[in-house]
Amino acid sequence: MTDYLYERRTIWANKHDMSAVVIVDQRHLPHDFVLAEIRSVSEAAVAIRDMWVRGAPLIGVTAAYGMYFAALEAKNAANFDAAIQHAANRLLSTRPTAVNLQWAIEKQIEVLKIPGTPEEKIVNVFRQANQMAEEDAEVCRNIGLHGLPLLTSISARKSGEPVNILTHCNAGRMACVEWGTATSPIYHAHQAGIAVHVWVDETRPRNQGAAITAWELAQAGIPHTVISDNTGGHLMQHGMVDICFVGTDRTTRTGDVANKIGTYLKALAAKDNNVPFYVALPSSTIDWNIENGLEQIAIEKRSEKEVTHISGWSESNHQVVEIRLTPENSPAANYAFDVTPAKYITGFITEKGICDASESGILTLFPEKTPY
Amino acid sequence: MTDYLYERRTIWANKHDMSAVVIVDQRHLPHDFVLAEIRSVSEAAVAIRDMWVRGAPLIGVTAAYGMYFAALEAKNAANFDAAIQHAANRLLSTRPTAVNLQWAIEKQIEVLKIPGTPEEKIVNVFRQANQMAEEDAEVCRNIGLHGLPLLTSISARKSGEPVNILTHCNAGRMACVEWGTATSPIYHAHQAGIAVHVWVDETRPRNQGAAITAWELAQAGIPHTVISDNTGGHLMQHGMVDICFVGTDRTTRTGDVANKIGTYLKALAAKDNNVPFYVALPSSTIDWNIENGLEQIAIEKRSEKEVTHISGWSESNHQVVEIRLTPENSPAANYAFDVTPAKYITGFITEKGICDASESGILTLFPEKTPY
Repeated sequence: MTDYLYERRTIWANKHDMSAVVIVDQRHLPHDFVLAEIRSVSEAAVAIRDMWVRGAPLIGVTAAYGMYFAALEAKNAANFDAAIQHAANRLLSTRPTAVNLQWAIEKQIEVLKIPGTPEEKIVNVFRQANQMAEEDAEVCRNIGLHGLPLLTSISARKSGEPVNILTHCNAGRMACVEWGTATSPIYHAHQAGIAVHVWVDETRPRNQGAAITAWELAQAGIPHTVISDNTGGHLMQHGMVDICFVGTDRTTRTGDVANKIGTYLKALAAKDNNVPFYVALPSSTIDWNIENGLEQIAIEKRSEKEVTHISGWSESNHQVVEIRLTPENSPAANYAFDVTPAKYITGFITEKGICDASESGILTLFPEKTPY
Repeated sequence: MTDYLYERRTIWANKHDMSAVVIVDQRHLPHDFVLAEIRSVSEAAVAIRDMWVRGAPLIGVTAAYGMYFAALEAKNAANFDAAIQHAANRLLSTRPTAVNLQWAIEKQIEVLKIPGTPEEKIVNVFRQANQMAEEDAEVCRNIGLHGLPLLTSISARKSGEPVNILTHCNAGRMACVEWGTATSPIYHAHQAGIAVHVWVDETRPRNQGAAITAWELAQAGIPHTVISDNTGGHLMQHGMVDICFVGTDRTTRTGDVANKIGTYLKALAAKDNNVPFYVALPSSTIDWNIENGLEQIAIEKRSEKEVTHISGWSESNHQVVEIRLTPENSPAANYAFDVTPAKYITGFITEKGICDASESGILTLFPEKTPY
């Protein structure tokens, strides 16, 4: 299974049929492993909006391929550029919080501006989508290599007893092309023979932790325990968490982090109990234009039904079944993300190294972003 | 439905058949309203252990009736006192965290020590169980009356705009005999015509918020919104919570509170955002013998299955269905409570009034507990 885990990606262009891109339809995890093909802007938009794919990096790469389909579809349009812009807007509107979506689309629009025939533009945008997938895999690999020493040193301090890591949502392989962000140091540690154990927040309402992170870790043979989102504080109070690793969907240049709803609560508990709280941060999630996460990051509000209903595996009927959890007429609210202020974050693990969660910290690794 | 809500209790002795006590079997809420009879120590123990009844005050009253059945069953035993002690131990072992269980059993043992025939003892212990039910209702009513001014003043400050209250788990009517603890001020405010809106934490893993608190509030016609447990921090950051009310299962004499897992995380968020965080506290939940909640309160660990599986209403099959949420072989952990240190609590709302969450604060209302 290890071969499968590390070699198979979450998205790839179909070599034999350039009219399709293959993804894992993650809505079926952990009960079924289903591949799906994307063949149009419309299908890419649905896959992002309805969370067949999710996770900021993977959303970005999927959108990049979406822009390839935009070019294919624009080829015969009266106005190529207008058709491209229309497709870009459609893709942009699918998820408001992840900055990678915007970043990937803008990168593709830049490439599409290179003068050439529609056919040449199509090749360029396809190549760049493939390249962005490669780069994401490489970024995640490097996040793992930079994060690894954090686990090595805890392991040494604990004389090889398992390092207890708490993670929230899925900032794993399935949120990226390979490796994951928050999970990459864990996979690297496991490969290096360091004993680890992961507390997996189930991450209501969509349970990406229970469904996807737990599945990923099980596939890799990494010891883990699923917990309700309420549990992390108690574990930290009792010394049962050595370090927290989470992902981010959008990061301000000052170090505030928008990540899956509930991340902020875990950061508060980590601070209260002196547990290091790290955010694994591909630099593509940094929104260099904003400075105040609470005021400037749009928080996606999703369907109430994700709170009132839940799907899972019926062991008596051997199928996925949806059930209602709430009284029939009780309303629900579903905010998908929250913002963790930089002051609660111990550090960022980026593809370029580890830095403080602050503007000056980030600029030590990305000096080219220093304001004039 | 209002009549129903305020007049019907959650537990009562059957007037026509003193061999049974009637309870609401809360495992079926919110999808079905099922009454059940308890006719033995064994049935009382199962009802408490398997959470047909739950909530510290109701656990206490149920245990008190359990001790009545103990006396009935001991009547023909070779050794009355030994049979009573055996039953007491059995009831005590059902749930480790709620102090009311121990408190109620000890009160009944005291009454059983009054010299008399077994028949007289049976009458005494039955009478005291009824009296404890009455007292619990009165305690909760008084908690509501003392908490009401907190809501009245917020309402005035907001010029009558709805007061947004966040609550965790169910410290409501269904956790008590009547009124509830954390919900009692809310019911009183609603009756007084003050506009309120309640954010209901769903409270994984057993979803007592989504299933029971939401049902209670819906029955009473009180506006409310169910949220995932991850959401409260975000709401507080954005000024969408005016005050938090939670219950407690065991309180140290110094003001630490053991309540449903996740309470601590909400208290941290309340502190971080200057949101008042009150614990509704019948004095029966105070364990006068302990001073350090984190070190001295045993935290119940319940079945993994409460995390890995969940039940709800199948709208296609019109029945309650159980589903699995996690990968088949992923383990889970299920800690039922956590401890919120006193420093994060704005105050206690007791049956005697409001006080600081500290030993000196508590002693202003309960001076008889001052140490020698």
